[in-house]
Amino acid sequence: MILVVGHKNPDSDSICSALVAEALLKARGLEAKAIRQGEINRETQFILEKAGMDKPELRTEVAGENIWLVDYSDLAQGPDDIAQAEILGIVDHHRLGDVTTTNPLEAWIWPVGCTSTILFNLFKMENAEITRPIATLMLSAILSDTVGFASPTCTDKDKQAVAELAPLAGVEDLDAFIKNLLIAKTDIEGLTPAELVEKDLKAYPFNDRQVIVGQVELATMDQVADQIDALEADLERRCSEESLAFAALMLTDITTSTTRLLYKGEWSSKIDAHAESGVLIMENTLSRKKQGWPWLQGVLA
Amino acid sequence: MILVVGHKNPDSDSICSALVAEALLKARGLEAKAIRQGEINRETQFILEKAGMDKPELRTEVAGENIWLVDYSDLAQGPDDIAQAEILGIVDHHRLGDVTTTNPLEAWIWPVGCTSTILFNLFKMENAEITRPIATLMLSAILSDTVGFASPTCTDKDKQAVAELAPLAGVEDLDAFIKNLLIAKTDIEGLTPAELVEKDLKAYPFNDRQVIVGQVELATMDQVADQIDALEADLERRCSEESLAFAALMLTDITTSTTRLLYKGEWSSKIDAHAESGVLIMENTLSRKKQGWPWLQGVLA
Repeated sequence: MILVVGHKNPDSDSICSALVAEALLKARGLEAKAIRQGEINRETQFILEKAGMDKPELRTEVAGENIWLVDYSDLAQGPDDIAQAEILGIVDHHRLGDVTTTNPLEAWIWPVGCTSTILFNLFKMENAEITRPIATLMLSAILSDTVGFASPTCTDKDKQAVAELAPLAGVEDLDAFIKNLLIAKTDIEGLTPAELVEKDLKAYPFNDRQVIVGQVELATMDQVADQIDALEADLERRCSEESLAFAALMLTDITTSTTRLLYKGEWSSKIDAHAESGVLIMENTLSRKKQGWPWLQGVLA
Repeated sequence: MILVVGHKNPDSDSICSALVAEALLKARGLEAKAIRQGEINRETQFILEKAGMDKPELRTEVAGENIWLVDYSDLAQGPDDIAQAEILGIVDHHRLGDVTTTNPLEAWIWPVGCTSTILFNLFKMENAEITRPIATLMLSAILSDTVGFASPTCTDKDKQAVAELAPLAGVEDLDAFIKNLLIAKTDIEGLTPAELVEKDLKAYPFNDRQVIVGQVELATMDQVADQIDALEADLERRCSEESLAFAALMLTDITTSTTRLLYKGEWSSKIDAHAESGVLIMENTLSRKKQGWPWLQGVLA
């Protein structure tokens, strides 16, 4: 039995790709089961309903198990007891992390927009049938990770995969599908400031200190207009409680590709020069991986 | 321009896969060029003649270049100045080595019998045309690395690739093709003892010391019957000149899957109990990676 596990604080790609990789391994005649390390978000819920699939079982212990990693290759994003598991496979579209193995493993790592784009190509490689639910999961994950093709992380391979997957998923009006997906993606109604910061939060070790950068994708900045103070207070609280050097939150309007950056912590003064009247706007910025975090690395260095 | 470079002391897979990866990158519309780090062996010469291809340019400096690695993922097997190059891709069928990157890269790592089997599947993924010379290179590399399917490293994926590649390469009589390939593989006429030890020599760091294990593939043990003393003397010379803890040479009769192990060095006494009258025979042993070196690791530990 192979457990397929996405990263902590799972996004739609991490959940969908775990289910898709389970299907790929089963198509090879192996026993496999997707699991998840945390709660799913509203967009993922929307996708699972479209696909008619149940969410993977919540499970954070993998000691003694054979596992595949999807959507990450650094151990910090895996289950806490990952060192006691045998990693047999990795499918990821990020940089090569710190996983090392004594035995040969499969590693399918490709700098495209979404892990599901790689899995789609692995299905082609295997000549394995792609069912309608699995096509729906891959299609949705790619459109989510690339923000409907708008993100700079999107590649031709992602677009090709969507073009081939849409008919398999029974999606005739792709624009309408993208619109509904992005509405689900940007639905933050009722979330507390702490939940917003945590929604898609990543920790980065930097210059021997710890930095966190969250991101909230929005249909309009108005959605958070009256929560700015509370969000900044939450960043400040995390800095003191977790001894962080810097904490930031990208508020990203995905319809205008504009990001407002909120930030706190002892390194904040390095950023201040880029703000106007305390408001830091990053034009044409959708991606934390390709834009937000690289820019921050340069300014914080 | 991407330089595609196989490992030091190149075998047929390392040379063929570099040329095949060059073709794959060109099919993607990129500029690419295969290079090699050392002289080609007689089997590789035979393959290149069959394919009608020239050998890659000899080049051991890659500083400042964009590179792909084929058939290895540990830096020690790469060019000495590899740290000054930008690694953009890895295609390998061994364990995941010590390469780390700051930027996303492609890594196609799969525990099959041959790097060319992975490249064949990447061609399928790209829907790229496989020309007759490129099919010949992949077919030959797979048959070489799997010793005509006899090696325990051989998988169904390797056999499937050969079945699809043989017609593309215009090979009608596969058994005859394998026979001629293995004749070229086991042609050691005129090689000195030092050249035999060096023919396919790998260094392994082990318990803070250095160990080397070479392998010579033979059609019959008679080919080296009168050179045993000279080969052992060469192993002894290397131990003292290079401060090695242990030096071994696998003499492998590929027609009977029998290996005789010659060995020298201060750790030799750990092995002696397994020899009879000073002769150590390993039955059913073709593969250094899957059989010879794992067994030695256990005994030397």
